[in-house]
Amino acid sequence: MSEETGFTSMAGAKSEDDVPEVGVGMLGYAFMGKAHSHAYKTIPYMMYPPPAIPRLEAIAGRNETAVAEAARRYGYAQYFTDWRAMLEDPAVQLLDNGGPNNLHAEPSILAAQMGKHVLCEKPLGRTADEARAMWEAVEKAGVKHMAAFNYRFVPAIRLIRDLIDQGKLGRIYHFRASYLQEWIMPHYGTPKIWRLDKSVAGSGALGDLGAHIIDLAHYLVGDIKAVGGLTTTFIKERAMEEGGMGVVDVDDAFAAAVEFENGAIGTLESSRFAAGRKNANVFEINAEHATVRFNLERLNELQVFWVGEEPTETQGFHDVLVTESYHPWWENWWPHGHIIGWEHTFAHEISHLLDCIVNDKEVGPHGATFEDGYRCAVVCDAIVESAGTRKFVDIRY
Amino acid sequence: MSEETGFTSMAGAKSEDDVPEVGVGMLGYAFMGKAHSHAYKTIPYMMYPPPAIPRLEAIAGRNETAVAEAARRYGYAQYFTDWRAMLEDPAVQLLDNGGPNNLHAEPSILAAQMGKHVLCEKPLGRTADEARAMWEAVEKAGVKHMAAFNYRFVPAIRLIRDLIDQGKLGRIYHFRASYLQEWIMPHYGTPKIWRLDKSVAGSGALGDLGAHIIDLAHYLVGDIKAVGGLTTTFIKERAMEEGGMGVVDVDDAFAAAVEFENGAIGTLESSRFAAGRKNANVFEINAEHATVRFNLERLNELQVFWVGEEPTETQGFHDVLVTESYHPWWENWWPHGHIIGWEHTFAHEISHLLDCIVNDKEVGPHGATFEDGYRCAVVCDAIVESAGTRKFVDIRY
Amino acid sequence: MSEETGFTSMAGAKSEDDVPEVGVGMLGYAFMGKAHSHAYKTIPYMMYPPPAIPRLEAIAGRNETAVAEAARRYGYAQYFTDWRAMLEDPAVQLLDNGGPNNLHAEPSILAAQMGKHVLCEKPLGRTADEARAMWEAVEKAGVKHMAAFNYRFVPAIRLIRDLIDQGKLGRIYHFRASYLQEWIMPHYGTPKIWRLDKSVAGSGALGDLGAHIIDLAHYLVGDIKAVGGLTTTFIKERAMEEGGMGVVDVDDAFAAAVEFENGAIGTLESSRFAAGRKNANVFEINAEHATVRFNLERLNELQVFWVGEEPTETQGFHDVLVTESYHPWWENWWPHGHIIGWEHTFAHEISHLLDCIVNDKEVGPHGATFEDGYRCAVVCDAIVESAGTRKFVDIRY
Amino acid sequence: MSEETGFTSMAGAKSEDDVPEVGVGMLGYAFMGKAHSHAYKTIPYMMYPPPAIPRLEAIAGRNETAVAEAARRYGYAQYFTDWRAMLEDPAVQLLDNGGPNNLHAEPSILAAQMGKHVLCEKPLGRTADEARAMWEAVEKAGVKHMAAFNYRFVPAIRLIRDLIDQGKLGRIYHFRASYLQEWIMPHYGTPKIWRLDKSVAGSGALGDLGAHIIDLAHYLVGDIKAVGGLTTTFIKERAMEEGGMGVVDVDDAFAAAVEFENGAIGTLESSRFAAGRKNANVFEINAEHATVRFNLERLNELQVFWVGEEPTETQGFHDVLVTESYHPWWENWWPHGHIIGWEHTFAHEISHLLDCIVNDKEVGPHGATFEDGYRCAVVCDAIVESAGTRKFVDIRY
Repeated sequence: MSEETGFTSMAGAKSEDDVPEVGVGMLGYAFMGKAHSHAYKTIPYMMYPPPAIPRLEAIAGRNETAVAEAARRYGYAQYFTDWRAMLEDPAVQLLDNGGPNNLHAEPSILAAQMGKHVLCEKPLGRTADEARAMWEAVEKAGVKHMAAFNYRFVPAIRLIRDLIDQGKLGRIYHFRASYLQEWIMPHYGTPKIWRLDKSVAGSGALGDLGAHIIDLAHYLVGDIKAVGGLTTTFIKERAMEEGGMGVVDVDDAFAAAVEFENGAIGTLESSRFAAGRKNANVFEINAEHATVRFNLERLNELQVFWVGEEPTETQGFHDVLVTESYHPWWENWWPHGHIIGWEHTFAHEISHLLDCIVNDKEVGPHGATFEDGYRCAVVCDAIVESAGTRKFVDIRY
Repeated sequence: MSEETGFTSMAGAKSEDDVPEVGVGMLGYAFMGKAHSHAYKTIPYMMYPPPAIPRLEAIAGRNETAVAEAARRYGYAQYFTDWRAMLEDPAVQLLDNGGPNNLHAEPSILAAQMGKHVLCEKPLGRTADEARAMWEAVEKAGVKHMAAFNYRFVPAIRLIRDLIDQGKLGRIYHFRASYLQEWIMPHYGTPKIWRLDKSVAGSGALGDLGAHIIDLAHYLVGDIKAVGGLTTTFIKERAMEEGGMGVVDVDDAFAAAVEFENGAIGTLESSRFAAGRKNANVFEINAEHATVRFNLERLNELQVFWVGEEPTETQGFHDVLVTESYHPWWENWWPHGHIIGWEHTFAHEISHLLDCIVNDKEVGPHGATFEDGYRCAVVCDAIVESAGTRKFVDIRY
Repeated sequence: MSEETGFTSMAGAKSEDDVPEVGVGMLGYAFMGKAHSHAYKTIPYMMYPPPAIPRLEAIAGRNETAVAEAARRYGYAQYFTDWRAMLEDPAVQLLDNGGPNNLHAEPSILAAQMGKHVLCEKPLGRTADEARAMWEAVEKAGVKHMAAFNYRFVPAIRLIRDLIDQGKLGRIYHFRASYLQEWIMPHYGTPKIWRLDKSVAGSGALGDLGAHIIDLAHYLVGDIKAVGGLTTTFIKERAMEEGGMGVVDVDDAFAAAVEFENGAIGTLESSRFAAGRKNANVFEINAEHATVRFNLERLNELQVFWVGEEPTETQGFHDVLVTESYHPWWENWWPHGHIIGWEHTFAHEISHLLDCIVNDKEVGPHGATFEDGYRCAVVCDAIVESAGTRKFVDIRY
Repeated sequence: MSEETGFTSMAGAKSEDDVPEVGVGMLGYAFMGKAHSHAYKTIPYMMYPPPAIPRLEAIAGRNETAVAEAARRYGYAQYFTDWRAMLEDPAVQLLDNGGPNNLHAEPSILAAQMGKHVLCEKPLGRTADEARAMWEAVEKAGVKHMAAFNYRFVPAIRLIRDLIDQGKLGRIYHFRASYLQEWIMPHYGTPKIWRLDKSVAGSGALGDLGAHIIDLAHYLVGDIKAVGGLTTTFIKERAMEEGGMGVVDVDDAFAAAVEFENGAIGTLESSRFAAGRKNANVFEINAEHATVRFNLERLNELQVFWVGEEPTETQGFHDVLVTESYHPWWENWWPHGHIIGWEHTFAHEISHLLDCIVNDKEVGPHGATFEDGYRCAVVCDAIVESAGTRKFVDIRY
């Protein structure tokens, strides 16, 4: 038992009995609740040997029927309709905050103050100020913290980062990313759900989708120097679930030109009005020695062009199937060519966090910390500001 | 409690307590053992509500250290180094046979005779005769039986079958399939493992990979009338794991022309000597109203060309992302565009089998029965015969 | 013989003798000279029956050896080292200006003043002012004028425009375009050629590549309301062909956020520092009823996603092979699937211009006029201005 | 002037006046007549300097109106409705036989006997016997002869051959090729045209499409040892152009397993009943050090996977844009990324033949000779024989 972490270290574990456990309290049972719960359940035998065994202590949500079913479905020991009550449970050592954006700050901060580690979905806060408060709270509490930018845990993306760290790409000239979806287009008849309400969500496509590509920009390219952006809302009023019409006060899409501290320039863009683009998080990096391109809809693949490759006459973009045993996390999975799904990014992510918790490791640079969540929010805010002032905004993290 | 099935029916279940359980005994802990175990563990919460809860009763394998670790890893209640002992356990209601090919017949037959349901990996038997004996045994015993042709449970492939059943493809003209891998090419330095030993495996690429595409030919096109095939072994001697060299007496590859009862013609081919093809199970059907193409390395996608589509000027192959909630099994998964992995074909497959077991449903036509496994073996044998006689062989199932 | 056009109309032509001829004077013998000459030579028999037969009267260029060889190679009747002298030749009825950018304005204006029609390569002028002067001159002279934005004459792109004109795309939400090349990256060792000299070229990637996508933005989406852009020069000094080093005073790349009058937003970007992107003019339009995507490196193809397409379960991006007899210009070419090359965009373009000349038709909206060339230059200038002022710039054409 | 060739050699030519000319007589004015004529007209300035200038002396065809228009359109000096009369013209030094298959043998043989060089479209003869007679005649006459297998002159395919010749692929394991089209499917309502009449065409998809892939098999892999094939005719009666119904006595499709002398095995297949496959000549070679894949619908591209490539973690199929100046024939074309069309394969092919004619070079191995045409016919006949006897047929060239 480590004095510092409060967990039995796995190093030197002779049997499974020595594998530490981490008690998890889950906030939210919808999309992210399901995805994270799946990860907690598969980590013990797929990310084997696991750094820790997650113990599903409790799940919290407002709708009692739904949260009770979620508890039964995923095997949480208890359920709560009041997240504060859940935090009171000393068995909960890690708060996994998968609630709506307006429930990111308060529970996360309180959990940290109670000495619990925190994993929080993105965007961290609805504004940079909110995100900063969260970061300061977890730092002050000395707990482990992670913003759930799970795409850092796609094997192909981690591979890109590794290539960059090894110096194989050289100077980066461009980063262009667009994250496109379609699910609030007119033919879907989407009402004004919480994601379209500024008071709950903070922003629209920007905070939901744009946050992912901004985080990847930080992770892969580095600090952003300035942004000039536009935002728009194509459908300004939508039916309220409770009847009547409500004003949509978040963006349906944004587009921005971006400049990095290292001199690279590029574009960032996200939209929920891109017909046929179901989950098209696509980015390309043009660098001195290579170009790389990624598309989340084909997340097991990576496109790479190497400058100067031999033989010269067959230079071209490689379509890399990132499924070899030597690729990131693939020692846990299947023989090559047997592709994995989007859901396993969470197994990689949470397994990393558990390792940091029980072995007192740094979450960064590969895991996104609350600081990373804050830095992402700074850029989001700057894009909104730029769209208002019609000026490029210098980034001050 | 159904008199006939011995299980509580789920229909009318008021609570999870009513969901029946099925006790599973797993034979084998390697690749297929891992894949099937993963399915058993995810079905209860991902294929929700599950038709039955699999109870992991026991796992059997020859190497005690390995099987003990597998039991611990996946949570099997017991482990056995003798599969016969495992079958003695009355808690085992379903034998999941993921052992090497020479262990398919005997345990499966014995299990059936003991009244246990059987799921057996492909190829069912090393020969058609062996497969037939297995089929007859399970039929005689009256148990549920399934040959683990899991690619029938890829959503895109089930979608093709559904389109065919709806008459949307019309008359089928061609089926061409190739299943290509690379892992025993010279640069891998593969020794003579069991898969390269005829006495254990029965055949090489033919039974391992070819069996999959032959089963899909049956599932999607129908009865085969005749085949003319070639087989070859590129590396005729390989290092034995116990030292010295051993003769490789199975095929490294086969190629065949095939004729169907419905008049379609085409080709079947598999190889373990196709550089860069990691798991390339690719097939194309050319039919009266459409062409469809599938590639397992992109299993969430389907390519379809529709004859006569409007508007005319944009006719072309569709790249369908088979991830919509209305696509087969997708109500269990994620929002569209968040792709799933190869491993979940087993969740679909085994969930189907559990449903058949507890609700006394037919495994076919969508699940492959032992009869399907036998029919596949007949075609495999005919290809081998044709390669020897240099004549086309008429298929007599 | 038409009084107005000075050419025999083809309408009612009974024999080839009735097909009018247009005397061509070509300025420039390098890349564009070659491409245009090829078009003049193939139009008579490939765009059959041709609206007019181009008569290759003269070619002008500074290097006598080179221009003499070009004349011999392509069959121009005469060559000139002084373009003014060429314009004096009354047999030259159409000036085809394929010279460097600093030779666009003066010869084009003089030719127009002499009553000659003018086809001028892009960018029309080095600045919007220069382009406006050119436009005013040709309008005043009453001659036909065309800016050689040849990508409007790619069958797939014309098809997009036709679909838009038919209302099939509905409201346009986004336009994102990037035109990427790689040929001045460090590994090419490119010296400071004229395209890298502001006094000759006006701008770099912006005017060379960006002009194409800005023109397509105008052609396909409509007027631009505002732009916010960044430009950069990665290699600030290069070897001069005459020895020593010279400052590169044009952009190597630009990136911009763009807003259209119709409410669409998007991004525009071009670079000569994108490894592996040989000629990647790629754009995507997300609209109410469809998304379309085009890539010049696969110019015979078009990707289209239709909202609401039946059957629902096979919705997906179509990969349209734009090679059917009913596709734009394809009645001139081959059976479907036998793809055509980039060079034939010029046959389509120039054939259109010849038709306008001899039959006194409007060059627009499908051909780009000098007005279109000017409008493009306005946007280029605005991007440069924005990059300097760090503010979004409202477009005033 | 060479005594042997009767042409002025280009080597040492000081001016264009020294470039020899070759008088061409064209038989046929339809699809192939158009494609070849285009090549004759572009060679002089695109394949620069040309080995010889083709002089378009005459064109022959049965329909006087059509052949007269063709002569005018392409600039042939004369036209003939009797090909024998054309051959009498001493100005015709090269017979380009683009007539229907039943007009391949007699005119080609007669032309050779008159001392004229012969370029003949594929398939060379309707049977191997007919093809052999043609080969013997041209050999006896000592003229240059070429079978128009133009796909050998696709840059990507020549690149594959070059890689093979350099030993870069190593031992070849597999060749699988399918050439698929769709233009006689039910929805086209195609009548019984000459291509569907055995007495004229010899065979159907086999001789038309299959001949191309068999020739490529010979060119890229080597001698074929045996084939086992199936043929079929889906629509057995079609409307005659002159009224009434006629029996279709050629194959609509074939499928074959193939064995090569070097030990490779694979499949060959062609069909005119593959919906959406417009001109899909697709083949893949799996070899010891690489896999290569080609698709004629994207003829400027080549897919290559290299075994053992560094860095290991980005191994994958390269999508090579075969448009670099160092790629075969590309010094004649455009800057990279500006793709060329299908039609230019003929410019490459015929330019090669002209070079062989005027400089007395060998047409092979890169050009297909009549011997190659014969060898191809042997394999076609063997596939037909196999389909009848239901036995594999050993190839005896």
